[in-house]
Formats: sequence, C-alpha cells, structure tokens
Amino acid sequence: MAAALNFPPTLFWQDNSLRLLDQTLLPAQEAYVTVKDVAHLCDCIKRLVVRGAPAIGCAAAYGTVLAAREAAAAGAGWRMRFDRLCDELAASRPTAVNLMWAVERCRKHAHALAEKGSDEAAVERGLLDLAKRVQDEDRAMCEAIGRHGASMLPKNKAVLMTHCNAGALATGGSGTALSVMYAAQAAGVALEVFADETRPLLQGARLTAWELARAGIPVTVICDNMAASVMRAKKPDGVVVGADRIAANGDVANKIGTYGLAVLARHHGVPFYVAAPSSTFDLSLADGSQIPIEERARAEIAQPNGVQAVPDGAATFNPAFDVTPADLVTALITEKGVLRPPYKDSIAKVIGA
Amino acid sequence: MAAALNFPPTLFWQDNSLRLLDQTLLPAQEAYVTVKDVAHLCDCIKRLVVRGAPAIGCAAAYGTVLAAREAAAAGAGWRMRFDRLCDELAASRPTAVNLMWAVERCRKHAHALAEKGSDEAAVERGLLDLAKRVQDEDRAMCEAIGRHGASMLPKNKAVLMTHCNAGALATGGSGTALSVMYAAQAAGVALEVFADETRPLLQGARLTAWELARAGIPVTVICDNMAASVMRAKKPDGVVVGADRIAANGDVANKIGTYGLAVLARHHGVPFYVAAPSSTFDLSLADGSQIPIEERARAEIAQPNGVQAVPDGAATFNPAFDVTPADLVTALITEKGVLRPPYKDSIAKVIGA
Repeated sequence: MAAALNFPPTLFWQDNSLRLLDQTLLPAQEAYVTVKDVAHLCDCIKRLVVRGAPAIGCAAAYGTVLAAREAAAAGAGWRMRFDRLCDELAASRPTAVNLMWAVERCRKHAHALAEKGSDEAAVERGLLDLAKRVQDEDRAMCEAIGRHGASMLPKNKAVLMTHCNAGALATGGSGTALSVMYAAQAAGVALEVFADETRPLLQGARLTAWELARAGIPVTVICDNMAASVMRAKKPDGVVVGADRIAANGDVANKIGTYGLAVLARHHGVPFYVAAPSSTFDLSLADGSQIPIEERARAEIAQPNGVQAVPDGAATFNPAFDVTPADLVTALITEKGVLRPPYKDSIAKVIGA
Repeated sequence: MAAALNFPPTLFWQDNSLRLLDQTLLPAQEAYVTVKDVAHLCDCIKRLVVRGAPAIGCAAAYGTVLAAREAAAAGAGWRMRFDRLCDELAASRPTAVNLMWAVERCRKHAHALAEKGSDEAAVERGLLDLAKRVQDEDRAMCEAIGRHGASMLPKNKAVLMTHCNAGALATGGSGTALSVMYAAQAAGVALEVFADETRPLLQGARLTAWELARAGIPVTVICDNMAASVMRAKKPDGVVVGADRIAANGDVANKIGTYGLAVLARHHGVPFYVAAPSSTFDLSLADGSQIPIEERARAEIAQPNGVQAVPDGAATFNPAFDVTPADLVTALITEKGVLRPPYKDSIAKVIGA
C-alpha cells in the first residue's frame, strides 16, 4: 500500500539527522525541517511540525538516536543525560501514548546495550536500527489496519467521513483511518470522502484533503459544524477516525470534535469506526476519564492566521482532544484485527494478550 | 433593555443615508459604512457588513427609502424602477424571510401612498417613517423576546450556550437569543456563556463575544467542534439560538451548525431554545425541507484570512444554514410568547392568528 502512495514522506532519517515534512506549512508548501538535536525535535512536536500519535512515536524513536549522540558529546554522565533527554522527548506532548511507548522501548534498548558493554557509538547505531524497525512496524501496522478496515466497507462504492488527519502524515506509513480508504481504493471501491476541516488547526482541510486529493480520492472539505447536515443528506457508510489513546474499556481519546461526531453518527445511524494500532491502547487506564487532555494556546482560537477573531474581553477554551465513550464506537480497527463490543473483553483478549 | 447596552448601534439613518456598523471588521475595528444607494446596500448585505435576519430586515426597510430616491432621480417610470430596486434588495440573500417581509411591507406602503396621490418626495418621507417604525418594532420585539426567554431560566445562575450571533448586531434592537441573556443579566442572574466561534465566518467569536464582553457577561469562545465536550462537562441550562426562517411545523433554518448543536443538546439532555420574532415564521412552508439554503463561496472555507487551507485538488461544501427539525426544539421564544410543541398548533394559534 504505502508504495502506491505518491506522497513526500512524513519523516525519514538522512545524513545523521531526522527529516520532517513541515506539516504547519501544508498544503501551500512541501518543505522539510532537518532535526539534529532533542530540543529542536521537542519544539517540532509541540508546534505540530510532526503530529499524529504514530508519527510522533516514530519521530521520538529517531529522537532517542539524537539523545544518545548528544549525551555522548557531553562526556561523563552519559546515562543520566540520555535519560533526561528521553524524559524531555516523552513529555513533549501529553495525550498520545505512542510517544511514551516509543521512547520507553528505545530507552530500555539503549540501557540493555550499554549493560552488555556496547560503547556509545554502538548504542547510537543500535538505537537507529531500532528506530527504523519502529517505523517499519508502523508501516506494516498501517497496511494491516487498512486491510481490516476496508473489509468492513461496501464493495462497490462508499461515502465516508473523517475528522482531523489520521493518514500517512500521522504515521510512519500509510495512516490509520486513511489507510482504510487507501486499501478500499486499491480494492476498487469508489470512494467519496467528507473531511471535517478540524478547527482550530485545520488538519482536516490542510492535511487530510492534501493526502486524499494526491491519492486521487474525491474529498470534500466541510467546516466541523456542517457534519450533521452532511450525515443527514449523504447517509455515509461510516465515519472513520484515528485515536491518540484508548483505555482498557474502549473509551477513545482523539482530536477535539471526535466525541461530537460520534454523537451525531449515533443519531443518524452511521457506523463509527476508530482505527488505531495496538500501541495506542493504554491498558493501565480503566476508562477514558483518566486520560490527560492537553489544552493548547488561546491564540489558536483567538488569532487564526494572526488575525484577531476573539475580542480581548472574552475567554477561550482550547482542549486539543476529547474522549469518546466506548458505547458510541461501532468497532475498533487495529493491526491485530477488528475489535467489537464488549470492548473490555475484546481489548483484553486481543491487545492485552 | 436596549438603552442599557453600551454598544455602537448596528444601523441607523443619518444625513439621508443608512449607516451600518461594518461587522466584517469586528472585533478589531468599530467602523461605519455610509450607504446611499441600493446597489451598495445589496453588496453590504451579501458581504455580511450587516447580517442577522432582523437586522437585514431593518436595513432593507431603510433600503426602500434609498430605492425611492433613486427611482425619483431617474424621472419617468418611477414605479417600475422602484419595484425593480425592491426586487434586488429582496434577492440579496435567500434564506432570511424577514428580508422579503420588510421589503414587501415597505413596497406596499409606497404603492399605497402613490395611489393616494403622494408625490415622490412624500413617498420617500413615508418610507423613512415606516423604516423607523420597523426598527422601533424590532427594538420592542427584542425586549419582549428577552423577557419571555429570561423567565424560563434559573433565577440565580445559568450556564448557556449559543451559536453564531443572534444579538444586538443581528437586529435593530438588543437581539433575539442574546436579548434573553441581557434580560437575565438585568434580572440579576449570574451568567456563564459558551459561544461557538461559528465557522466559516466566526460570527460567534467576532460578534457574540464582542457583544457579551461589552455587556459584562462572562463569555468563553470555543471552536464549534468543542460544543459536545462543553455540554458533557458543564451541563448547561440551555442552548439559545436565533433563526432565519421557521416553517409552519416549527422546523428552524438557522446558521450552519445549529442542527448539529440541537442533536448534541438532545443527547446531553440540554434544553434547546430558538429565539425569533414572528416575522421569522413563514407559514407558507409546511416544513423546513422547502426552505432555500444559501451556499456561499469556497474561499470562506478554503482561504480563511486569505491563507490557503484547502488544497486545490479538494472540493468544498459551504451551506450557510441548516434546518433543525422541530422535534429537537424545546421551545420557540417569540415576542408574542413562548411556543411549545406541538408546534403546528401553537404556531397556528399564536403566529398565524
């Protein structure tokens, strides 16, 4: 699948640096940022140069290579310094669990190599191999999700809706929610996709529409508040979204607006699918109420494109995510298969095993 | 009520011209446009310099004065020319019925004056008197709506949500939905209001927040896709919105997003109120399916503030309004009183009488 997508890659390692497609500039410009140290990568993650839970996980895995190199350059106290840089990476955004997951996996690997007597250069090489493996696994995960998801759609034509961007730009491969569309397209399904623009940062308008249009899938961008009208008029075959964290009971944290969309889908009898890798599941959380929700800057709402939209005398509220209760989710599409309610059981069996 | 509001007026007649507060510049600038002819007024209505069904109605009433003057200046064929200018005014936006209503009322008045032998200057004076009466009635209507609406809220404190702007800026007086808030505030209710920013034109962020902040009512602007989260977290006492047209069965056309908000309100057990004058009702329409829905320019979605947000290869869909089915509406708040379901009966009795 991924090979069929004619996109500039979201992220890759080149010349001892991590190269990130600057998603803040899309769709107007396709430009890369070259990242050589952890502080710069944290800044890129915070500013959403790279975003999407799986892509952040991949970027963070490469980031541990940068961390190892920086720690080595500092001389004595390598491990303490490496760990501190890993902590900074893991804390760069709070909601996506893949970030913590990737950093911890790489950190453990580095510690194991060091304990086996590897020198600093060997640890760095070992981390780069692991980071590439993390991305390879991510690619395979995306393809498997696409395959499982596409099997649930009508065979001839389908109208789908999505929110934010859970595509190639959000992963190291072909996406989660959007990989379902790419797989369906490859299987000959005629698709029509409605993409919520996804305020405040317009990932749907800027990123999802860019990906789908490049892939030749007809896509129509709507404002978030038009989703209800589109559902009533178009009777979509499904809403497919990604996830940033999924609790043990199936509650889903995803981009702000996902919860409202799930309520609208239920009201209109539209299936609501969440596509996410097993690394998105956080079985340490019994339900979604414990998922930390990042609040972002006022300016994202108050000054779109630097133009004042909200008067100074008014407050703003800018949560980046919301939690969709499991009972609004028709199915969870993972690389390990499609999970159905009751999720507590299906998640424990397939993900927790 | 209106006197207590310390706003620059939305529209007024001065020096033989209509002065419009340019709502496209709010909240950054408070500037007036001076309108001397019908073509300019039509342009102002289309560009949303003045917007909101009742305010458009008032502006159009003054516009018939401009139409009479232009027709007189043209010499022979006064009536045909006047009628054509009235037609242009009435067609400047398709969804709000108040516009057609105001133009027809003034046109009939002009014809009646002419038939009674008034000369052109006398018709113009008569139309100006009528336009001022239309605005005075609008002010009284707003106050009555506020009174009726406030009587339905809790007496000590209330959390309310609203969408778009149905305030002083949308009327010739203190607003429809927002007049309910102004009346509640005057009655000593401690209010907390969440205003949807209302994409694509951000009337909630730019206009509602400006009004409420100026009136000293605590207001928090959220993106439209955050409304579901706010409903779950804050358990509001009600959603109060305006309307552009209401059919005989109680179906409500209002700013795009209203329908979705009504679905969310139903899901969360939040009362959903529509505040609108009797001139908003179109009893010639059995239900909302017959209300024409204006589609606006792609650029509103694709190029917010002139910055490209949607790639060229993607389509957009930009309906300016949607229709909320009557069964999602808890009550219709009019200047003639509060209407409850079954609306077919209550509307026929109170509005159709």
